[in-house]
Amino acid sequence: MIPVGREGVCSDLAARYVCEREKERHPHSPFGDKGFVEKMKIMVVGFFTCFPLLPLPSQYKLTYRWDWEDFSTKRLTDSMSSDAELALRPYEARVLLYSYWKSSCSSRVRIALALKGVDYEYVPVNLTKDGGEQFKEEYRKINPMSQVPAIFIDGVVLSQSVPIIEYLDETRPDPPLLPKDPKDRAKARMLVEVINSGIQPLQTSRILKVFGDKKEEWACSMISDAFVALEQTLQDTAGRYCVGNEVTIADIYLVPQVINAIRFGVDMSKYPTISKIKDALEVLPAFVTAHETRQPDTPDDQQAK
Amino acid sequence: MIPVGREGVCSDLAARYVCEREKERHPHSPFGDKGFVEKMKIMVVGFFTCFPLLPLPSQYKLTYRWDWEDFSTKRLTDSMSSDAELALRPYEARVLLYSYWKSSCSSRVRIALALKGVDYEYVPVNLTKDGGEQFKEEYRKINPMSQVPAIFIDGVVLSQSVPIIEYLDETRPDPPLLPKDPKDRAKARMLVEVINSGIQPLQTSRILKVFGDKKEEWACSMISDAFVALEQTLQDTAGRYCVGNEVTIADIYLVPQVINAIRFGVDMSKYPTISKIKDALEVLPAFVTAHETRQPDTPDDQQAK
Repeated sequence: MIPVGREGVCSDLAARYVCEREKERHPHSPFGDKGFVEKMKIMVVGFFTCFPLLPLPSQYKLTYRWDWEDFSTKRLTDSMSSDAELALRPYEARVLLYSYWKSSCSSRVRIALALKGVDYEYVPVNLTKDGGEQFKEEYRKINPMSQVPAIFIDGVVLSQSVPIIEYLDETRPDPPLLPKDPKDRAKARMLVEVINSGIQPLQTSRILKVFGDKKEEWACSMISDAFVALEQTLQDTAGRYCVGNEVTIADIYLVPQVINAIRFGVDMSKYPTISKIKDALEVLPAFVTAHETRQPDTPDDQQAK
Repeated sequence: MIPVGREGVCSDLAARYVCEREKERHPHSPFGDKGFVEKMKIMVVGFFTCFPLLPLPSQYKLTYRWDWEDFSTKRLTDSMSSDAELALRPYEARVLLYSYWKSSCSSRVRIALALKGVDYEYVPVNLTKDGGEQFKEEYRKINPMSQVPAIFIDGVVLSQSVPIIEYLDETRPDPPLLPKDPKDRAKARMLVEVINSGIQPLQTSRILKVFGDKKEEWACSMISDAFVALEQTLQDTAGRYCVGNEVTIADIYLVPQVINAIRFGVDMSKYPTISKIKDALEVLPAFVTAHETRQPDTPDDQQAK
């Protein structure tokens, strides 16, 4: 079984599978035996990544409507000039962020990328249009959970904000997003999870739909309860920011959550510590850049002036 | 402001606060100036930790009903024999797990502690008795989110399963719970978050209450949807276990979630990869020990035979 469909982003494993299979079939391929798997992998990842969500030079778009039954290395290599190979090669070096402007989870990853100074291409996934683009077959291949954000980075597709940000921090350690001391790291991750698993999953459109007319009331009371706990925890951990005086992963989660809280009518005057930290963070360049009002898919009437 | 209440577990910060304050007041305390803060810290942490959730030698229980207004080092030290000091000292070295037998989140930490070979004392928090012991004032001081698990370890209180397990892995690295390669680490954490933030928060008693008669239907459909995604992701990542052939943090999340799925009537035959991995995991000693049917607070009729 091939763990990808006809179009979409393929996984490392899928690329390797295709490579091994085609190597057996075409031992004398024009790529030569040595390096074949690696080159194929780049090509396969390239195709799957850019197609159909990103434009490819038109000859590929037309030629390579991917068809597993009809796959042949010949078809692929015949029209693969060295120019084309070159055009595909950089895909593995590109970073694509699948994001929705208003999504707080997308916002977290945008802030982390900005803090780390990672350039990326923004691929909008409209969560409201036509019942939600995240449910479309082609997006499900990128993230089977049908959620944003997802990211194509270093040749792999990752989803869920926590693993994405931890990965960024492990592979691009400067500036660090976690404190050095294990206890402080644990405190930062605690604050993250209060928001990530304790609040955000209870205010998604799926949950809000259940509450009908009372959805704002539900979201407001649920966020308020958790903010009481958050406020209390922050009194132990906070300095200028959530944990001491350096920006950490906890701050990345706090700001988009406060934006949501305000949207749902939470009275922020009850949470002076949260408010003070939010005020200190939202003026930092990474938080400004990543703000929902400044994204390529932000509607015109919501764009920051 | 003192960031703890009258009874409960105090934080590092609170201990330090009291120590500094009492040092100013009593420069000639019987402990002597040097080492005073450290000794006080151990005592304060000791008291707060053990009281009221753990038994203390009775003289302390009677004498030290903690009262900030009435606090005096004299009262504390007068009846503090060197024996007593000795009795309190080890508290900082103890590990206390606040857990409920049936809680899947508690179960994750129990599995992690068992895998790491960390001895701990089990402090039961009954989530159903009297409207839930987790909402009691004394437990709120341990975890303001009123959730299990929480852990007292290395002198600090941590809550939320992800930060607890990441902390255990950072401070007790053998055996590792995360793969070495950053991409594999990200994949393990992705699987964790699909369950931790994508499934579990939607099946808590708070959410289920909203659905009344239809609660099982809701839980079943919501877990099933996510298991479709999980099954698909696992086809890329799994070996014998969730990520390759070594037990990782992802496995720690998978098993308790499958137990919940079965409880809610999810048809597991639709998820052959999940089922196969669960079968391989549940016979491992750590998973056996941590199982909900083998905890000190497991009701007699639910105990493993």
